[in-house]
Formats: sequence, C-alpha cells, structure tokens
Amino acid sequence: MPQISINSGRLLEDMSRLRTFGACGTGVVRPAFSEADIAARKWLANRMKEAGLEPVFDPAGNLFGLPAGDRPCLLVGSHTDSQPEGGWLDGAYGVIAGLETARTSIEAGGPPVAVVSFQDEEGRFGVLTGSRIWSNALSLAEADRLADATGRTFGEVRRSMADLCTGDFLPADRFSGFIEAHIEQGPVLDSAGEVVGVVDAIVGIRSENLRFRGQQNHAGTTPMAMRRDAFQGLVAFTDELNRRLAEIVTPASVWTIGHVAVHPNAASIVPGEVDFTVQWRDGEDARLDRMREVIIGAAEKTARTRGLELERSAYMAVPPTATDDTLRARLEAAAEKLASGKWRKMPSGALHDAANVSRLMPVAMLFVPSIGGISHDFAEDTAEEHLVLGAGVLAEAVFKSQ
Amino acid sequence: MPQISINSGRLLEDMSRLRTFGACGTGVVRPAFSEADIAARKWLANRMKEAGLEPVFDPAGNLFGLPAGDRPCLLVGSHTDSQPEGGWLDGAYGVIAGLETARTSIEAGGPPVAVVSFQDEEGRFGVLTGSRIWSNALSLAEADRLADATGRTFGEVRRSMADLCTGDFLPADRFSGFIEAHIEQGPVLDSAGEVVGVVDAIVGIRSENLRFRGQQNHAGTTPMAMRRDAFQGLVAFTDELNRRLAEIVTPASVWTIGHVAVHPNAASIVPGEVDFTVQWRDGEDARLDRMREVIIGAAEKTARTRGLELERSAYMAVPPTATDDTLRARLEAAAEKLASGKWRKMPSGALHDAANVSRLMPVAMLFVPSIGGISHDFAEDTAEEHLVLGAGVLAEAVFKSQ
Repeated sequence: MPQISINSGRLLEDMSRLRTFGACGTGVVRPAFSEADIAARKWLANRMKEAGLEPVFDPAGNLFGLPAGDRPCLLVGSHTDSQPEGGWLDGAYGVIAGLETARTSIEAGGPPVAVVSFQDEEGRFGVLTGSRIWSNALSLAEADRLADATGRTFGEVRRSMADLCTGDFLPADRFSGFIEAHIEQGPVLDSAGEVVGVVDAIVGIRSENLRFRGQQNHAGTTPMAMRRDAFQGLVAFTDELNRRLAEIVTPASVWTIGHVAVHPNAASIVPGEVDFTVQWRDGEDARLDRMREVIIGAAEKTARTRGLELERSAYMAVPPTATDDTLRARLEAAAEKLASGKWRKMPSGALHDAANVSRLMPVAMLFVPSIGGISHDFAEDTAEEHLVLGAGVLAEAVFKSQ
Repeated sequence: MPQISINSGRLLEDMSRLRTFGACGTGVVRPAFSEADIAARKWLANRMKEAGLEPVFDPAGNLFGLPAGDRPCLLVGSHTDSQPEGGWLDGAYGVIAGLETARTSIEAGGPPVAVVSFQDEEGRFGVLTGSRIWSNALSLAEADRLADATGRTFGEVRRSMADLCTGDFLPADRFSGFIEAHIEQGPVLDSAGEVVGVVDAIVGIRSENLRFRGQQNHAGTTPMAMRRDAFQGLVAFTDELNRRLAEIVTPASVWTIGHVAVHPNAASIVPGEVDFTVQWRDGEDARLDRMREVIIGAAEKTARTRGLELERSAYMAVPPTATDDTLRARLEAAAEKLASGKWRKMPSGALHDAANVSRLMPVAMLFVPSIGGISHDFAEDTAEEHLVLGAGVLAEAVFKSQ
C-alpha cells in the first residue's frame, strides 16, 4: 500500500484562492446563491475537473466532483457558502481538504474519492438546505417556497444557477460513506493545545419557548411582598435550572437562555410577562429527555411557588447523530498516527451537513482547532499547520478505506 | 367653630361629570392639552366660578380657583389630565375633592381655600410638567422646547390654550400650604381593609442603568465552563442583590429590574451583553444611599467573579419629599375622627405634584384606596363611600386649619 502525502502548498493555495470570492477584510461575504457564491462554485467545479473529477451540479445547487468509474466510493466535503458576515474557513476548509484528498488519492493510486460542496448550509433559506433536500428531508417543491429575509424564494434564486444545474440528484448508493472535515467553531481544541478532534456524535438540539405571566404593576406603589414579578420568576427559574441540571449532565452538555423579552420592559413598571427560550444540546437522546424533564419541572415549580402562570408555546427537537464506528475508527487511527496524544474524541455542538447525510449512509467528522474558539466572524482563523495536518488525517483515513 | 360636612351628592356628581370628558369605557383618555383635557378645564373653571372662586389659568395651563381676599390660604387639588389610557380617578379625584372642600368651607363660613388642577402631571412632556414650571424647577422657555412622542412641543400645544391662559404665574406666598388628595395607586390600603392613608413622605427614586459585557458565543460549541454569559451574570447579580438588600430595607422599600435588553437575543447564541435598569425607592435619603452601595457592590462582585465587564451608563436621583408635620397632624386627626382605626401613615411610592410644590410651601397628602391596587388602567376604581370619606377627611383637616 503506497504512503499517502497531501500537497500542502496546493491545499493552502486553493484555500487562499477560494477566500478571494466575496473577500471582505479577513473574512468573506458569500451567502448561498450570491454572485460570489456562484462564482466560487464555478471555480471549484473547474478545480475538480483539473483534478480528474467530473463536476455535477444537482437541482438544489449542491456541487459534486465524481471520480471515474461507478463503484461506490467515499464522499468527502462540506459547504462553501458563508454566513452574511462569515469567516474564511468554516465549511470551505472541509471542501478544499476533501478536494486535496481526492486528487492526492488519484495521484497516489489510492481509492476513488468524491467531493461535495453542499448549498446553503448556513441557512439563508432555513437550516442546511442543500443537504436536507438531497437526503429527502425536504422536497425540492417545498424548498422552492422557502423565502430568505428579503422575501426572495429558494425557487427564484436557484434559477439563477439554472445554466449550471443540469445534473439530476445523485443516487445515495453511488457513495459508501461521508466524511466531513470542518473547523471546530468552539474553544475546546485550541484551549487544550490539541490539533484534531474526531467527532463521536453531532449533538441533538432541543428548545422550549416559555412564558411566565405575573402581574404588571407600578414599581413605586407595589410593595415587594405583593408583587408577582415575571422577571424575578425567570431569575428564580434559572437558578433552579442551573442547580438541577448540574446534577445530571456531562461536561459536554450545554444549555442556554439566549432570548429574553420582558414586558412592558420599562424601568418604572414591575414586569408582567417574560418570554424566553431554553435551548439545550447533548449527544444522547436519553439525556436530552432527562434535561427536558428538569427544565419543565423547574419552570412549573417556579410558577407554582411565585403565583405565576406558565405557558409553553413551542418545542423543537433535532435528534443527535451518531457517527459510524468504522469510519470513526479510521479517523482515530489516522489522528493517532499523525498527531499522537494531541487529538481527542468530542461531540460536535453545532449542526453540520453530516447530520442530514447520515440518513443516507454512514458518516464521520473531523475538526481542526478554531483560534480562540471564534467562528461566524471575520476574525475566524486556524493555524496553517493545523489546516495541513487536518487534511493529512482526512487523506490518511480515506486512503486506509480501500 | 361650626361642624363641617361636605355634600357627598355634589362631590360624586362632579366626579361623574368630569369622567365624561374623554370617556372611554370605564376609563378616560384625557392627556394634557388634548381637546378633552381643555374642555374639562373649561368646565372646571366654570364650576369654580359657581362655587365663588375666581378661575385663573397660568401660562403653563395650570388652573387655579382663588377665594376672595388676599390673605394666604391653603391650596388643595391635584391634576385632571390622564395617561393616554387612564383611569377615571387618579388626580381628578383630588381636584374635585378639593373643589368640594373649598365650596363647603365657603358655605360653612370656614377658612378661605384655593383649588388647583396642575397641567401635564402624567408627563406627556416629561414628568409633572405644570407643577415643575410653577415651582421654578423648569423654566417656561425650557418647557416650550420639550416634545411629546409625536414631536409636538409644549410651546406649540400651550398656544392652543392661549385664549384661556391670560393670567400670570401666581406668587407662591398667596398660599400657606398645599394638600393633595389622590388615589393610592397601590394595593396597601385595599388589601388591609383600610380606608385612608396619610402620606409621611413621597419616596425618593434612584435608578442605575447597568451593562454586563461578556463574550458572545455559539450556544452549541461553547462548553458551559468556558462561557462568559452576560444573561447568567444578570441572574447571579439579581440573586445577590435580593439577598443583600433584604438585610437593610424596610417593608416600604422597593427595587425593580424592569428593563432588560439581551444582545444579540437569539436562542442559539450565548448572550454577549445585557443592559438593564435597577430602580429603587425609599422615603429616606440615607437608606437610598445604602441601597445604592449594595447595588453597585453586587454588580461589581458579579462582574469580578464571572469575568464580565461592568458599565454604568446613567444614574438618576429624585430626592424624597417629607410632608409637613403640622399639615400631616391635621390630616391624621381628621382621619382618626372620621375613620378611627381604619387609616395608616404610609409613604407615597409614586411621584406627585406635591413633591414639586414642596419647594414653595409646606405640603401634605392623603390617599384613598385603589380597588385591587389598579391604576393607569381603565379598570381603576375606588368605592364611592371611600371617595366621600376621603373628601370629608380633607375638608375636616382644612377646616381645622383656620
């Protein structure tokens, strides 16, 4: 079996070139279907062709680069669209690392490897739109009716790529599995001085929209003992929640009260209502269930003891995605070979296209460190040596899969 | 000395008539300088004249009813403007109770009594605008530049009363003191089954606008232990504050976190900033000072222990107003005579015109119960017998002042 060795100069050159599409300071502005996004996809299709892959745009705008032959092969990649104000790496890193892996494999006589850049991962039209359509979680007809913040629909904007999107949706059985490389987008690897993360699960996300309703009152004439202050209810609830959740979670579990709306929100008025969200994430469904019981129990107890009414207006659940044991073992072996003692298994706290693709085939994921944990920001960055190392781990794992 | 006895039918009739100006369901819509407000003032001026008082509109739109003669007399009253959606009583009660007191005194050969309805107590152009101008806390020229929420200025709207406002500002030495009757606007009397409150102090109001600045982060990829969550800082601060203030306050002290703004206020983002107000009220300046020390101390401790930055952007202080010992003693004696065992001394948690007038002369205040503590709401109400009793206490106290 030949030794695989990626071309680090070519990897970094392609990363730099991709960065120029929608460049804005140190970041990029390259939302799905923007001029910069379409130009970047055209460039990427050309780079695929130069690498010996056949570029295929499917009707959703997802771009695949297919190796010769038709036996099932591994698919590697991520997405090249960005947030409205995004970092230069994000999913773009996974796509170029995938491209470098595929062409290295061709050059080294390794296994055939396909590459993908999914469309609208960043959610101009929802969440992970391109991979959601390909994995049959959303029909193209439904997607076409989705509108962005300005009212333009998915159906409208994908017509602007009609000259490119001449291919049909690719059958899932063309691929044996999917590996997505991505920046971590969190501080864990960077702060631990580690260089690679092998994802064991993409965490599940749950959220509850809650409301405490008390009694709006004059902040001067209402004695403390006679108040039913909705905001003070939220404070008591949050305390109770933090105390009770700490007893049942792992260090990888998270919960966030990120949205709070106090009514009527005036300095001189005792708050009569407060709307808020509790969002929580964990890799295990059973723990997500237990966390939900604690959240609802704490809210009910707070309402009962403080004379508040509790309303639950919306509940959302995205299940966790376990990664495939075999693919993960290959990534772990590659990480141990190239970065012994400097990698870890870890959950992905963010959603990724791999979560959708897992409906179709086995998936795995690989992280490189985000400096300072920063992402979705022009300041997003990763050390060059870690970009090279991550692509090397990916190539090593893919090479061993033949 | 003749016995004084108000005409309860006439009091309630005038209350009912005044209620028709700007009537809206059970409430009134009679903001300062609205058509309904000006019509109500014209009607009131006429009722003053019929009672033997000379009506005088000063340049700010304050309406005085002056008794014959020029020796200093007591001034009684409040205001007849309402909140944009107000209750039928509020200050209107104090004005009509004052008018009934003045005409009863004339009929019974009691002391001369003047009546007033201040303009814009409810703050279309700020706070207690009419009495602020009369008490020289705000010049007419400064007031003229104040704009309401729609951009109209005080100078503009007072010109719409120019045909009425032909009098000059009245000299303060025309009056020996001011007594303001008002509904309580809180639940204390109603819930205790008491019928009269004699105000010992109008509480001072302080407020701080504060900000905790932490680190905005992804709610999925940022472990709990690495967060600097500004909202969680506010929760910890509020706990600390409640615990520490409880040790130094009286049952009449209040504090309120009424305004909260979380940034960026999204379910999936760890809050990076939170702006909030702490407002606190008490009858004693020394206690207000101690409360401020606790508030700032708790905020600084929270910032220090949680790695947050603390900013203080605005501080506001309105000093407490002590009521006059002699006037208050007369109200207490009258309350004990007419409602023995069913009245209390209490602070006013709301600001009133009396706070401004105290710059010019001794002041006192009298409360009647608010059913359910409700005010600034169409549902605001007081039992008829309590309206009558309150006016009786006012008249008794005024009568004993000659």
